Parts: sequence; C-alpha cells; structure tokens
Amino acid sequence: MNAKTNILDLHPHLRQALDLIADKWVVAVLYVLSQDTRRYGELQREIGNISQRMLTRTLRDLERNGLVGRKVYLVVPPMVEYSLTPLGETLSQVLKELCDWSTNNFHDVEAARIDYDNKGSDLS
Amino acid sequence: MNAKTNILDLHPHLRQALDLIADKWVVAVLYVLSQDTRRYGELQREIGNISQRMLTRTLRDLERNGLVGRKVYLVVPPMVEYSLTPLGETLSQVLKELCDWSTNNFHDVEAARIDYDNKGSDLS
Repeated sequence: MNAKTNILDLHPHLRQALDLIADKWVVAVLYVLSQDTRRYGELQREIGNISQRMLTRTLRDLERNGLVGRKVYLVVPPMVEYSLTPLGETLSQVLKELCDWSTNNFHDVEAARIDYDNKGSDLS
Repeated sequence: MNAKTNILDLHPHLRQALDLIADKWVVAVLYVLSQDTRRYGELQREIGNISQRMLTRTLRDLERNGLVGRKVYLVVPPMVEYSLTPLGETLSQVLKELCDWSTNNFHDVEAARIDYDNKGSDLS
C-alpha cells in the first residue's frame, strides 16, 4: 500500500472532465466552434448527421456548463450565434491534444491489438 | 457551409481516444501506473473498490491496446508486474492535462450551471 496514492482525491476531477466530453455531439460542436463562431444552421450543416433535437440539447448542455455562449440578434428572422467561451476555449485545447495523440498514435494501438490477438492462445 | 470543415475526417481520431479512456477503471489503472510499476495486488489495494474480475479485464484491455506491459517473474508464488508502455506514458500525459484542466476549471463549470439553472425560466 502506498500512502501517497489518493485515487479518490484525484479521480473525481478526471471523471468530471471525461463526463463533460465523452459524447460525440459535444465533441463535434466544440470542434466546429473551436474554428469560429457559428449560427445554428451552420452548425447543423457542418456536423451533418445531427438531428435538430440533438443539436438543440447539446448546445443547451454546453451553454449550461459554461463552455458555449449564445448571442441573440433581435432581427427578423431572429439570428442566434454560438461561440466558445474562454472556458470552452481552454477545454477545446486539451481536446485538441487528445485528438493529436490519437492521430499520432492510434496506429500503434491497432498494431498492439493485432499482436495481442495473434498470440492470444498462448496467454490464457 | 464551409469547405475547410472536415468533421468526419478529424472526428474518428478523437472518438477513438475517448473510447480508450472513457472508463473509470481504465483511468484509475493508468493513473496508478503513471506513478510507478505495480504488482497486481498493489493495484487492487490502491484502486480500492475494484473487483478482481474487473481489474483483470481492465489490465487485459490495456495490455491489448499496447498501453500497459506485463512482466511475469518465474518465482514461487509467481509474481506479475504491470507498468505503462512508452505509448501508455504518452496517453497518460494527455490524461494528466485533462485532469489538470478539470482541477483548475471545474468550479467554473459548476458556477455556470448554477447561473444557468437560476435564470432557467427566462430562457425557455
């Protein structure tokens, strides 16, 4: 046993961060908004296969978590713009590093899986 | 529509990385092993509330993904040591940044939620 270890102290932070981002629509919206401000219709077109209901829900969750800001222009027809908040920008940076890690390393993960599965019968 | 956007090109990488780590036991094992090599029993004690079956499965998945290495010592009783591979080390670094983000910013997320919920009835 190791007195320095404090899984329960450290763990909740990471779990909280994973809970925030472990959703493909959240990731997609954060990714598009990391490029620039977008209107609702632009988000819908760029993400492609997201339903209106799911996009609305995702944006509402992101806004509630302080990651995305919403600006309403009182014009006809009404215009709403979404953008990352400063808090959302910082999370988006970390997401980018995770994405870079995966881009650079996922072939190693896949190669390891093939190795492991090939020698699978020796290990059991 | 924006020709530069390529959600479907970029997205899979990030999803793959999230799929690797979006499991609390995976995160716990990577965290303990980021400190140092551990024996099976040490992992079990330090993580605390993980069942033997779940720890075995988690370690096997991590080994299969090339993130954790297993060294068997042919002694009596047999001794098995687990440690991060170089690949596991790099992922562990990104996880640490995500954890740091959450440690530093999660109170802002919580404050945003309270704000949002307090003015909730105005928004609907």
